[in-house]
Amino acid sequence: MPSLSVSEYSLVYNAFSFTFAAMFATFIYLVLSRGNVAPKYRTAITMSALVVAIAGYHYLRIFESWQAAFVIDPNNAEAYIASGKPFNDAYRYIDWLLTVPLLVAELVAVMSIAKGKGWLTFRLATAAALMVILGYPGEIAADTGTRALWGFLSTLPFVYILYELFVGLGPAIQNEKGEAKVLLRNIRLLLLATWGFYPIVYLIPIISGGAAATAGVIMAVQVGYCIADVAAKCGYGIMIYAIAKAKTDAEPAAAQMPAAAALAGD
Amino acid sequence: MPSLSVSEYSLVYNAFSFTFAAMFATFIYLVLSRGNVAPKYRTAITMSALVVAIAGYHYLRIFESWQAAFVIDPNNAEAYIASGKPFNDAYRYIDWLLTVPLLVAELVAVMSIAKGKGWLTFRLATAAALMVILGYPGEIAADTGTRALWGFLSTLPFVYILYELFVGLGPAIQNEKGEAKVLLRNIRLLLLATWGFYPIVYLIPIISGGAAATAGVIMAVQVGYCIADVAAKCGYGIMIYAIAKAKTDAEPAAAQMPAAAALAGD
Repeated sequence: MPSLSVSEYSLVYNAFSFTFAAMFATFIYLVLSRGNVAPKYRTAITMSALVVAIAGYHYLRIFESWQAAFVIDPNNAEAYIASGKPFNDAYRYIDWLLTVPLLVAELVAVMSIAKGKGWLTFRLATAAALMVILGYPGEIAADTGTRALWGFLSTLPFVYILYELFVGLGPAIQNEKGEAKVLLRNIRLLLLATWGFYPIVYLIPIISGGAAATAGVIMAVQVGYCIADVAAKCGYGIMIYAIAKAKTDAEPAAAQMPAAAALAGD
Repeated sequence: MPSLSVSEYSLVYNAFSFTFAAMFATFIYLVLSRGNVAPKYRTAITMSALVVAIAGYHYLRIFESWQAAFVIDPNNAEAYIASGKPFNDAYRYIDWLLTVPLLVAELVAVMSIAKGKGWLTFRLATAAALMVILGYPGEIAADTGTRALWGFLSTLPFVYILYELFVGLGPAIQNEKGEAKVLLRNIRLLLLATWGFYPIVYLIPIISGGAAATAGVIMAVQVGYCIADVAAKCGYGIMIYAIAKAKTDAEPAAAQMPAAAALAGD
Protein backbone atom coordinates (compact mmCIF):
# COMPACT_ATOMS: atom_id res chain seq x y z
CA MET A 1 0.00 0.00 0.00
CA PRO A 2 1.28 3.51 -0.77
CA SER A 3 1.64 6.22 1.88
CA LEU A 4 -1.43 8.36 2.40
CA SER A 5 -1.85 11.79 3.92
CA VAL A 6 -4.06 11.97 7.02
CA SER A 7 -6.90 13.50 4.99
CA GLU A 8 -6.60 10.86 2.24
CA TYR A 9 -6.64 8.06 4.83
CA SER A 10 -9.56 9.72 6.64
CA LEU A 11 -11.59 10.11 3.46
CA VAL A 12 -11.59 6.33 2.88
CA TYR A 13 -12.10 5.67 6.61
CA ASN A 14 -15.07 8.05 6.63
CA ALA A 15 -16.49 6.53 3.43
CA PHE A 16 -16.43 3.03 4.99
CA SER A 17 -18.04 4.30 8.16
CA PHE A 18 -20.67 6.21 6.16
CA THR A 19 -21.50 3.05 4.22
CA PHE A 20 -21.78 0.97 7.40
CA ALA A 21 -24.11 3.58 8.95
CA ALA A 22 -26.22 3.76 5.77
CA MET A 23 -26.55 -0.05 5.73
CA PHE A 24 -27.69 -0.40 9.33
CA ALA A 25 -30.00 2.63 9.10
CA THR A 26 -31.63 1.07 6.02
CA PHE A 27 -31.91 -2.22 7.92
CA ILE A 28 -33.80 -0.49 10.76
CA TYR A 29 -35.99 1.35 8.27
CA LEU A 30 -36.94 -1.81 6.37
CA VAL A 31 -37.63 -3.82 9.52
CA LEU A 32 -39.83 -1.04 10.99
CA SER A 33 -41.65 -0.41 7.70
CA ARG A 34 -42.19 -4.04 6.69
CA GLY A 35 -45.67 -4.11 8.23
CA ASN A 36 -46.84 -1.31 5.89
CA VAL A 37 -46.92 -3.58 2.84
CA ALA A 38 -49.28 -6.44 1.99
CA PRO A 39 -48.17 -9.82 3.39
CA LYS A 40 -47.34 -11.22 -0.07
CA TYR A 41 -44.65 -8.54 -0.55
CA ARG A 42 -43.07 -8.89 2.88
CA THR A 43 -40.62 -11.58 1.73
CA ALA A 44 -39.12 -9.04 -0.69
CA ILE A 45 -38.70 -6.52 2.16
CA THR A 46 -37.18 -9.20 4.39
CA MET A 47 -34.64 -10.02 1.68
CA SER A 48 -33.82 -6.30 1.27
CA ALA A 49 -33.26 -6.11 5.03
CA LEU A 50 -30.97 -9.18 4.90
CA VAL A 51 -28.90 -7.62 2.11
CA VAL A 52 -28.16 -4.44 4.07
CA ALA A 53 -27.57 -6.38 7.31
CA ILE A 54 -25.03 -8.65 5.58
CA ALA A 55 -23.38 -5.74 3.76
CA GLY A 56 -23.27 -3.69 6.99
CA TYR A 57 -21.44 -6.53 8.75
CA HIS A 58 -18.93 -6.80 5.92
CA TYR A 59 -18.33 -3.06 5.86
CA LEU A 60 -17.51 -3.18 9.55
CA ARG A 61 -14.88 -5.84 8.77
CA ILE A 62 -13.50 -3.96 5.76
CA PHE A 63 -13.35 -0.82 7.93
CA GLU A 64 -11.33 -2.70 10.56
CA SER A 65 -9.06 -4.15 7.88
CA TRP A 66 -8.42 -0.61 6.57
CA GLN A 67 -7.55 0.61 10.07
CA ALA A 68 -5.18 -2.32 10.62
CA ALA A 69 -3.43 -1.86 7.25
CA PHE A 70 -2.01 1.56 8.15
CA VAL A 71 -0.04 3.19 10.95
CA ILE A 72 0.97 6.80 11.48
CA ASP A 73 4.43 7.34 9.95
CA PRO A 74 6.85 7.52 12.92
CA ASN A 75 8.84 10.18 11.03
CA ASN A 76 5.85 12.26 9.90
CA ALA A 77 2.70 12.69 11.98
CA GLU A 78 0.87 13.98 8.87
CA ALA A 79 1.10 10.69 6.96
CA TYR A 80 -0.05 7.07 7.17
CA ILE A 81 2.22 4.27 5.96
CA ALA A 82 1.50 0.56 5.36
CA SER A 83 1.54 -1.39 8.64
CA GLY A 84 2.47 -4.61 6.81
CA LYS A 85 -0.95 -6.17 7.38
CA PRO A 86 -2.68 -6.57 3.99
CA PHE A 87 -5.90 -4.67 3.31
CA ASN A 88 -8.40 -7.46 2.71
CA ASP A 89 -10.19 -6.14 -0.33
CA ALA A 90 -11.11 -9.44 -1.99
CA TYR A 91 -13.27 -9.85 1.10
CA ARG A 92 -16.01 -7.96 -0.71
CA TYR A 93 -16.58 -11.10 -2.77
CA ILE A 94 -17.80 -12.88 0.36
CA ASP A 95 -20.36 -10.13 0.83
CA TRP A 96 -21.41 -10.27 -2.80
CA LEU A 97 -21.73 -14.08 -2.77
CA LEU A 98 -24.54 -13.65 -0.22
CA THR A 99 -26.07 -10.33 -1.23
CA VAL A 100 -26.04 -10.36 -5.05
CA PRO A 101 -28.28 -13.46 -5.41
CA LEU A 102 -30.62 -11.88 -2.80
CA LEU A 103 -30.76 -8.64 -4.80
CA VAL A 104 -32.04 -10.39 -7.93
CA ALA A 105 -34.35 -12.63 -5.87
CA GLU A 106 -36.01 -9.66 -4.14
CA LEU A 107 -36.74 -8.02 -7.50
CA VAL A 108 -38.57 -11.16 -8.65
CA ALA A 109 -40.32 -11.45 -5.27
CA VAL A 110 -41.84 -7.96 -5.50
CA MET A 111 -43.17 -8.48 -9.04
CA SER A 112 -46.52 -9.95 -9.97
CA ILE A 113 -45.42 -12.93 -12.04
CA ALA A 114 -48.18 -15.41 -12.72
CA LYS A 115 -46.07 -18.58 -12.82
CA GLY A 116 -42.51 -19.84 -12.85
CA LYS A 117 -41.45 -17.35 -10.15
CA GLY A 118 -39.46 -19.96 -8.20
CA TRP A 119 -37.64 -21.29 -11.26
CA LEU A 120 -36.80 -17.74 -12.47
CA THR A 121 -35.46 -16.84 -9.01
CA PHE A 122 -33.32 -19.99 -9.02
CA ARG A 123 -31.83 -19.21 -12.47
CA LEU A 124 -31.09 -15.57 -11.62
CA ALA A 125 -29.66 -16.30 -8.17
CA THR A 126 -27.45 -19.09 -9.58
CA ALA A 127 -26.16 -16.78 -12.32
CA ALA A 128 -25.48 -14.07 -9.72
CA ALA A 129 -23.52 -16.50 -7.49
CA LEU A 130 -21.55 -17.79 -10.52
CA MET A 131 -20.71 -14.22 -11.53
CA VAL A 132 -19.17 -13.58 -8.10
CA ILE A 133 -17.40 -16.97 -7.83
CA LEU A 134 -15.82 -16.62 -11.30
CA GLY A 135 -14.62 -13.09 -10.53
CA TYR A 136 -12.76 -14.08 -7.36
CA PRO A 137 -9.78 -16.03 -8.84
CA GLY A 138 -9.10 -13.03 -11.11
CA GLU A 139 -9.29 -10.58 -8.21
CA ILE A 140 -6.59 -12.38 -6.22
CA ALA A 141 -4.46 -13.26 -9.27
CA ALA A 142 -1.01 -11.68 -9.49
CA ASP A 143 -0.87 -11.40 -13.30
CA THR A 144 -3.23 -9.42 -15.50
CA GLY A 145 -3.74 -12.30 -17.97
CA THR A 146 -5.36 -14.49 -15.31
CA ARG A 147 -7.40 -11.51 -14.13
CA ALA A 148 -8.67 -10.87 -17.67
CA LEU A 149 -9.58 -14.55 -18.21
CA TRP A 150 -11.67 -14.89 -15.02
CA GLY A 151 -13.12 -11.42 -15.57
CA PHE A 152 -14.35 -12.54 -18.98
CA LEU A 153 -15.86 -15.77 -17.58
CA SER A 154 -17.58 -13.75 -14.84
CA THR A 155 -19.12 -11.47 -17.46
CA LEU A 156 -21.07 -14.35 -19.06
CA PRO A 157 -23.53 -14.86 -16.16
CA PHE A 158 -23.72 -11.03 -15.82
CA VAL A 159 -24.86 -10.76 -19.45
CA TYR A 160 -27.38 -13.57 -18.82
CA ILE A 161 -28.81 -11.63 -15.81
CA LEU A 162 -29.11 -8.46 -17.89
CA TYR A 163 -30.85 -10.46 -20.64
CA GLU A 164 -33.39 -11.85 -18.15
CA LEU A 165 -34.03 -8.45 -16.55
CA PHE A 166 -34.34 -6.40 -19.74
CA VAL A 167 -35.81 -8.97 -22.16
CA GLY A 168 -37.22 -11.86 -20.09
CA LEU A 169 -38.94 -9.65 -17.51
CA GLY A 170 -40.14 -7.08 -20.05
CA PRO A 171 -43.69 -8.48 -20.48
CA ALA A 172 -44.17 -8.88 -16.70
CA ILE A 173 -43.20 -5.22 -16.13
CA GLN A 174 -45.59 -4.14 -18.92
CA ASN A 175 -48.40 -5.82 -16.98
CA GLU A 176 -47.66 -3.81 -13.82
CA LYS A 177 -49.68 -0.64 -13.23
CA GLY A 178 -49.12 3.02 -12.34
CA GLU A 179 -46.32 3.98 -9.97
CA ALA A 180 -45.11 0.38 -9.55
CA LYS A 181 -44.49 0.10 -13.31
CA VAL A 182 -42.37 3.28 -13.36
CA LEU A 183 -40.43 2.20 -10.26
CA LEU A 184 -39.75 -1.26 -11.70
CA ARG A 185 -38.35 0.27 -14.87
CA ASN A 186 -36.20 2.62 -12.79
CA ILE A 187 -34.90 -0.11 -10.49
CA ARG A 188 -33.58 -2.07 -13.49
CA LEU A 189 -31.68 1.04 -14.58
CA LEU A 190 -30.37 1.55 -11.02
CA LEU A 191 -29.15 -2.04 -11.04
CA LEU A 192 -27.46 -1.60 -14.43
CA ALA A 193 -25.82 1.72 -13.43
CA THR A 194 -24.53 0.49 -10.06
CA TRP A 195 -23.46 -3.01 -11.15
CA GLY A 196 -21.68 -1.44 -14.11
CA PHE A 197 -19.23 0.18 -11.68
CA TYR A 198 -17.76 -3.15 -10.50
CA PRO A 199 -16.33 -4.34 -13.86
CA ILE A 200 -14.77 -0.88 -14.34
CA VAL A 201 -12.91 -1.19 -11.03
CA TYR A 202 -11.98 -4.77 -11.91
CA LEU A 203 -10.34 -3.52 -15.11
CA ILE A 204 -8.15 -0.87 -13.42
CA PRO A 205 -5.16 -3.19 -12.72
CA ILE A 206 -5.36 -4.47 -16.32
CA ILE A 207 -5.49 -0.95 -17.79
CA SER A 208 -2.62 0.22 -15.59
CA GLY A 209 -0.57 -2.80 -16.71
CA GLY A 210 -0.38 -4.26 -13.21
CA ALA A 211 1.37 -1.19 -11.74
CA ALA A 212 1.00 -0.77 -7.97
CA ALA A 213 -2.02 1.34 -7.16
CA THR A 214 -1.38 4.98 -6.31
CA ALA A 215 -3.09 6.80 -3.43
CA GLY A 216 -5.43 8.42 -5.97
CA VAL A 217 -6.51 5.07 -7.47
CA ILE A 218 -7.04 3.52 -4.03
CA MET A 219 -9.20 6.45 -2.91
CA ALA A 220 -11.23 6.44 -6.15
CA VAL A 221 -11.79 2.67 -6.01
CA GLN A 222 -12.75 2.52 -2.32
CA VAL A 223 -14.97 5.62 -2.30
CA GLY A 224 -16.45 4.47 -5.62
CA TYR A 225 -17.26 1.02 -4.18
CA CYS A 226 -18.93 2.70 -1.19
CA ILE A 227 -21.13 4.90 -3.39
CA ALA A 228 -22.00 1.93 -5.66
CA ASP A 229 -22.81 -0.28 -2.65
CA VAL A 230 -25.00 2.35 -0.97
CA ALA A 231 -26.91 2.87 -4.25
CA ALA A 232 -27.10 -0.86 -5.13
CA LYS A 233 -28.12 -2.02 -1.64
CA CYS A 234 -29.68 0.84 0.38
CA GLY A 235 -31.15 2.75 -2.58
CA TYR A 236 -32.26 -0.50 -4.24
CA GLY A 237 -33.80 -1.84 -1.01
CA ILE A 238 -35.75 1.37 -0.44
CA MET A 239 -36.98 1.24 -4.07
CA ILE A 240 -38.12 -2.38 -3.53
CA TYR A 241 -40.03 -1.11 -0.48
CA ALA A 242 -41.52 1.77 -2.55
CA ILE A 243 -42.66 -0.72 -5.22
CA ALA A 244 -44.24 -3.00 -2.59
CA LYS A 245 -45.93 0.03 -0.96
CA ALA A 246 -47.24 1.35 -4.30
CA LYS A 247 -48.66 -2.09 -5.15
CA THR A 248 -50.17 -2.47 -1.67
CA ASP A 249 -51.87 0.94 -1.93
CA ALA A 250 -53.15 0.20 -5.45
CA GLU A 251 -54.77 -3.08 -4.49
CA PRO A 252 -58.20 -3.49 -2.89
CA ALA A 253 -57.87 -3.43 0.89
CA ALA A 254 -59.21 -7.00 0.97
CA ALA A 255 -55.88 -8.22 -0.34
CA GLN A 256 -54.02 -6.43 2.45
CA MET A 257 -55.85 -7.45 5.60
CA PRO A 258 -57.75 -10.60 4.77
CA ALA A 259 -59.44 -11.21 8.13
CA ALA A 260 -60.58 -7.69 8.99
CA ALA A 261 -61.56 -6.89 5.42
CA ALA A 262 -63.70 -9.98 5.07
CA LEU A 263 -65.65 -8.86 8.12
CA ALA A 264 -65.90 -5.16 7.39
CA GLY A 265 -65.95 -5.12 3.62
CA ASP A 266 -63.34 -2.40 3.91
CA MET B 1 -3.66 18.35 20.20
CA PRO B 2 -2.65 20.29 23.31
CA SER B 3 -2.05 18.62 26.67
CA LEU B 4 -5.14 18.30 28.84
CA SER B 5 -5.49 17.82 32.57
CA VAL B 6 -7.20 14.60 33.62
CA SER B 7 -10.39 16.52 34.47
CA GLU B 8 -10.39 18.39 31.14
CA TYR B 9 -9.94 15.12 29.25
CA SER B 10 -12.65 13.45 31.33
CA LEU B 11 -15.15 16.26 30.77
CA VAL B 12 -15.06 15.70 27.01
CA TYR B 13 -14.99 11.89 27.47
CA ASN B 14 -18.08 12.11 29.69
CA ALA B 15 -19.86 14.47 27.29
CA PHE B 16 -19.36 11.98 24.42
CA SER B 17 -20.59 9.11 26.55
CA PHE B 18 -23.62 11.12 27.72
CA THR B 19 -24.50 11.94 24.11
CA PHE B 20 -24.20 8.31 23.03
CA ALA B 21 -26.47 7.23 25.91
CA ALA B 22 -29.02 9.97 25.07
CA MET B 23 -29.07 8.89 21.41
CA PHE B 24 -29.67 5.21 22.05
CA ALA B 25 -32.23 5.90 24.80
CA THR B 26 -34.14 8.13 22.36
CA PHE B 27 -33.91 5.38 19.74
CA ILE B 28 -35.51 2.86 22.10
CA TYR B 29 -38.19 5.38 23.10
CA LEU B 30 -39.13 6.17 19.49
CA VAL B 31 -39.22 2.53 18.38
CA LEU B 32 -41.39 1.53 21.37
CA SER B 33 -43.73 4.55 20.99
CA ARG B 34 -44.10 4.40 17.23
CA GLY B 35 -47.31 2.37 17.44
CA ASN B 36 -49.04 5.16 19.42
CA VAL B 37 -49.36 7.44 16.41
CA ALA B 38 -51.57 7.06 13.33
CA PRO B 39 -49.98 4.97 10.53
CA LYS B 40 -49.54 8.00 8.27
CA TYR B 41 -47.19 9.64 10.80
CA ARG B 42 -45.11 6.53 11.49
CA THR B 43 -42.64 7.25 8.69
CA ALA B 44 -41.72 10.50 10.48
CA ILE B 45 -41.11 8.56 13.73
CA THR B 46 -39.09 5.92 11.86
CA MET B 47 -36.89 8.66 10.40
CA SER B 48 -36.44 10.20 13.87
CA ALA B 49 -35.38 6.79 15.15
CA LEU B 50 -32.90 6.41 12.28
CA VAL B 51 -31.36 9.81 13.04
CA VAL B 52 -30.58 8.96 16.67
CA ALA B 53 -29.39 5.45 15.74
CA ILE B 54 -26.96 6.85 13.16
CA ALA B 55 -25.80 9.63 15.49
CA GLY B 56 -25.38 7.16 18.36
CA TYR B 57 -23.12 5.00 16.21
CA HIS B 58 -21.01 8.02 15.23
CA TYR B 59 -20.70 9.19 18.82
CA LEU B 60 -19.38 5.77 19.73
CA ARG B 61 -16.72 6.15 17.02
CA ILE B 62 -15.88 9.75 18.00
CA PHE B 63 -15.59 8.58 21.60
CA GLU B 64 -13.13 5.86 20.53
CA SER B 65 -11.18 8.34 18.42
CA TRP B 66 -10.94 10.68 21.45
CA GLN B 67 -9.62 7.84 23.62
CA ALA B 68 -7.05 6.87 20.98
CA ALA B 69 -5.86 10.46 20.46
CA PHE B 70 -4.49 10.81 24.02
CA VAL B 71 -2.20 8.92 26.38
CA ILE B 72 -1.31 9.66 29.99
CA ASP B 73 1.86 11.79 30.08
CA PRO B 74 4.67 9.41 31.16
CA ASN B 75 6.20 12.30 33.13
CA ASN B 76 3.00 13.52 34.77
CA ALA B 77 0.17 11.21 35.78
CA GLU B 78 -2.13 14.24 36.10
CA ALA B 79 -2.05 15.09 32.38
CA TYR B 80 -2.98 13.65 29.00
CA ILE B 81 -0.77 14.29 25.99
CA ALA B 82 -1.40 13.67 22.28
CA SER B 83 -0.78 10.03 21.34
CA GLY B 84 0.05 10.96 17.72
CA LYS B 85 -3.16 9.46 16.36
CA PRO B 86 -5.33 12.26 14.98
CA PHE B 87 -8.68 13.01 16.62
CA ASN B 88 -11.06 12.44 13.71
CA ASP B 89 -13.34 15.41 14.16
CA ALA B 90 -14.28 15.87 10.49
CA TYR B 91 -15.98 12.53 11.05
CA ARG B 92 -19.04 14.41 12.30
CA TYR B 93 -19.66 15.41 8.69
CA ILE B 94 -20.30 11.76 7.84
CA ASP B 95 -22.95 11.67 10.52
CA TRP B 96 -24.50 14.90 9.29
CA LEU B 97 -24.51 13.74 5.67
CA LEU B 98 -26.97 11.02 6.71
CA THR B 99 -28.85 12.69 9.56
CA VAL B 100 -29.38 16.30 8.43
CA PRO B 101 -31.38 15.38 5.29
CA LEU B 102 -33.44 13.00 7.48
CA LEU B 103 -34.11 15.80 10.01
CA VAL B 104 -35.68 18.05 7.38
CA ALA B 105 -37.48 15.10 5.75
CA GLU B 106 -39.11 14.03 9.03
CA LEU B 107 -40.43 17.57 9.59
CA VAL B 108 -42.14 17.49 6.19
CA ALA B 109 -43.36 13.92 6.83
CA VAL B 110 -45.17 14.89 10.05
CA MET B 111 -46.92 17.90 8.49
CA SER B 112 -50.25 17.84 6.67
CA ILE B 113 -49.22 19.15 3.28
CA ALA B 114 -51.85 18.62 0.61
CA LYS B 115 -49.54 18.14 -2.37
CA GLY B 116 -45.94 18.39 -3.49
CA LYS B 117 -44.69 16.71 -0.27
CA GLY B 118 -42.28 14.44 -2.14
CA TRP B 119 -40.79 17.26 -4.19
CA LEU B 120 -40.43 19.54 -1.13
CA THR B 121 -38.69 16.72 0.76
CA PHE B 122 -36.34 16.18 -2.16
CA ARG B 123 -35.43 19.89 -2.36
CA LEU B 124 -34.84 20.23 1.38
CA ALA B 125 -32.89 16.96 1.71
CA THR B 126 -30.71 17.86 -1.28
CA ALA B 127 -30.00 21.31 0.17
CA ALA B 128 -29.16 19.72 3.54
CA ALA B 129 -26.75 17.23 1.93
CA LEU B 130 -25.13 20.02 -0.13
CA MET B 131 -24.69 22.13 3.00
CA VAL B 132 -22.73 19.28 4.65
CA ILE B 133 -20.72 18.31 1.55
CA LEU B 134 -19.66 21.92 0.91
CA GLY B 135 -18.59 22.36 4.53
CA TYR B 136 -16.25 19.34 4.53
CA PRO B 137 -13.39 20.67 2.32
CA GLY B 138 -13.25 23.77 4.54
CA GLU B 139 -13.19 21.70 7.72
CA ILE B 140 -10.15 19.70 6.64
CA ALA B 141 -8.39 22.67 4.96
CA ALA B 142 -5.15 23.87 6.52
CA ASP B 143 -5.57 27.57 5.69
CA THR B 144 -8.32 29.88 6.89
CA GLY B 145 -8.97 31.34 3.41
CA THR B 146 -10.07 27.94 2.04
CA ARG B 147 -12.12 27.38 5.18
CA ALA B 148 -13.89 30.73 4.74
CA LEU B 149 -14.63 30.05 1.05
CA TRP B 150 -16.23 26.62 1.61
CA GLY B 151 -17.96 27.90 4.73
CA PHE B 152 -19.56 30.64 2.65
CA LEU B 153 -20.66 28.18 -0.07
CA SER B 154 -22.11 25.88 2.58
CA THR B 155 -24.15 28.78 3.98
CA LEU B 156 -26.09 29.19 0.72
CA PRO B 157 -28.08 25.92 0.99
CA PHE B 158 -28.49 26.64 4.75
CA VAL B 159 -30.15 29.98 3.93
CA TYR B 160 -32.35 28.21 1.38
CA ILE B 161 -33.48 25.67 4.03
CA LEU B 162 -34.30 28.48 6.47
CA TYR B 163 -36.26 30.25 3.72
CA GLU B 164 -38.31 27.12 3.02
CA LEU B 165 -38.96 26.46 6.71
CA PHE B 166 -39.86 30.01 7.73
CA VAL B 167 -41.47 31.35 4.54
CA GLY B 168 -42.36 28.38 2.31
CA LEU B 169 -43.87 26.25 5.11
CA GLY B 170 -45.61 29.22 6.79
CA PRO B 171 -49.06 28.68 5.24
CA ALA B 172 -48.97 24.92 5.90
CA ILE B 173 -48.21 25.54 9.60
CA GLN B 174 -51.05 28.11 9.76
CA ASN B 175 -53.42 25.36 8.59
CA GLU B 176 -52.40 23.04 11.44
CA LYS B 177 -54.55 23.05 14.56
CA GLY B 178 -54.16 23.32 18.33
CA GLU B 179 -51.15 21.77 20.01
CA ALA B 180 -49.61 20.58 16.72
CA LYS B 181 -49.50 24.16 15.43
CA VAL B 182 -47.66 25.42 18.53
CA LEU B 183 -45.24 22.48 18.45
CA LEU B 184 -44.48 22.98 14.75
CA ARG B 185 -43.66 26.64 15.36
CA ASN B 186 -41.43 25.67 18.28
CA ILE B 187 -39.60 22.91 16.38
CA ARG B 188 -38.57 25.42 13.70
CA LEU B 189 -37.08 27.60 16.42
CA LEU B 190 -35.32 24.59 17.98
CA LEU B 191 -33.85 23.79 14.58
CA LEU B 192 -32.68 27.39 14.07
CA ALA B 193 -31.17 27.62 17.58
CA THR B 194 -29.33 24.29 17.42
CA TRP B 195 -28.16 24.50 13.80
CA GLY B 196 -26.92 28.02 14.50
CA PHE B 197 -24.27 26.56 16.82
CA TYR B 198 -22.45 24.72 14.01
CA PRO B 199 -21.40 27.78 11.92
CA ILE B 200 -20.15 29.46 15.11
CA VAL B 201 -17.82 26.53 15.81
CA TYR B 202 -16.80 26.49 12.15
CA LEU B 203 -15.70 30.14 12.46
CA ILE B 204 -13.46 29.63 15.52
CA PRO B 205 -10.25 28.77 13.56
CA ILE B 206 -10.87 31.78 11.31
CA ILE B 207 -11.44 34.16 14.24
CA SER B 208 -8.34 32.83 16.04
CA GLY B 209 -6.30 33.36 12.86
CA GLY B 210 -5.55 29.66 12.42
CA ALA B 211 -3.80 29.37 15.80
CA ALA B 212 -3.69 25.85 17.27
CA ALA B 213 -6.72 25.22 19.44
CA THR B 214 -6.18 25.56 23.17
CA ALA B 215 -7.54 23.09 25.71
CA GLY B 216 -10.31 25.60 26.52
CA VAL B 217 -11.42 25.90 22.90
CA ILE B 218 -11.36 22.12 22.38
CA MET B 219 -13.50 21.57 25.48
CA ALA B 220 -15.96 24.32 24.51
CA VAL B 221 -16.29 23.00 20.95
CA GLN B 222 -16.70 19.33 21.86
CA VAL B 223 -19.09 19.86 24.77
CA GLY B 224 -20.96 22.44 22.68
CA TYR B 225 -21.34 19.95 19.81
CA CYS B 226 -22.68 17.37 22.25
CA ILE B 227 -25.31 19.77 23.64
CA ALA B 228 -26.30 20.91 20.13
CA ASP B 229 -26.53 17.30 18.88
CA VAL B 230 -28.65 16.13 21.83
CA ALA B 231 -31.04 19.07 21.31
CA ALA B 232 -31.09 18.84 17.50
CA LYS B 233 -31.53 15.04 17.36
CA CYS B 234 -33.01 13.68 20.62
CA GLY B 235 -35.02 16.80 21.51
CA TYR B 236 -36.10 17.29 17.91
CA GLY B 237 -37.07 13.63 17.49
CA ILE B 238 -39.18 13.69 20.64
CA MET B 239 -40.90 16.88 19.44
CA ILE B 240 -41.66 15.19 16.10
CA TYR B 241 -43.24 12.36 18.10
CA ALA B 242 -45.22 14.88 20.19
CA ILE B 243 -46.53 16.54 17.01
CA ALA B 244 -47.52 13.19 15.51
CA LYS B 245 -49.23 12.20 18.79
CA ALA B 246 -51.10 15.53 19.04
CA LYS B 247 -52.33 15.17 15.46
CA THR B 248 -53.31 11.53 16.01
CA ASP B 249 -55.34 12.46 19.10
CA ALA B 250 -57.02 15.38 17.31
CA GLU B 251 -58.19 13.29 14.36
CA PRO B 252 -61.28 11.10 14.18
CA ALA B 253 -60.34 7.56 15.16
CA ALA B 254 -61.58 6.29 11.79
CA ALA B 255 -58.61 7.89 10.10
CA GLN B 256 -56.25 5.98 12.33
CA MET B 257 -57.37 2.38 12.01
CA PRO B 258 -59.51 1.99 8.90
CA ALA B 259 -60.50 -1.66 9.20
CA ALA B 260 -61.14 -1.81 12.93
CA ALA B 261 -62.92 1.56 12.89
CA ALA B 262 -65.38 0.39 10.26
CA LEU B 263 -66.28 -2.53 12.50
CA ALA B 264 -66.42 -0.88 15.86
CA GLY B 265 -67.31 2.70 15.02
CA ASP B 266 -64.43 3.57 17.31
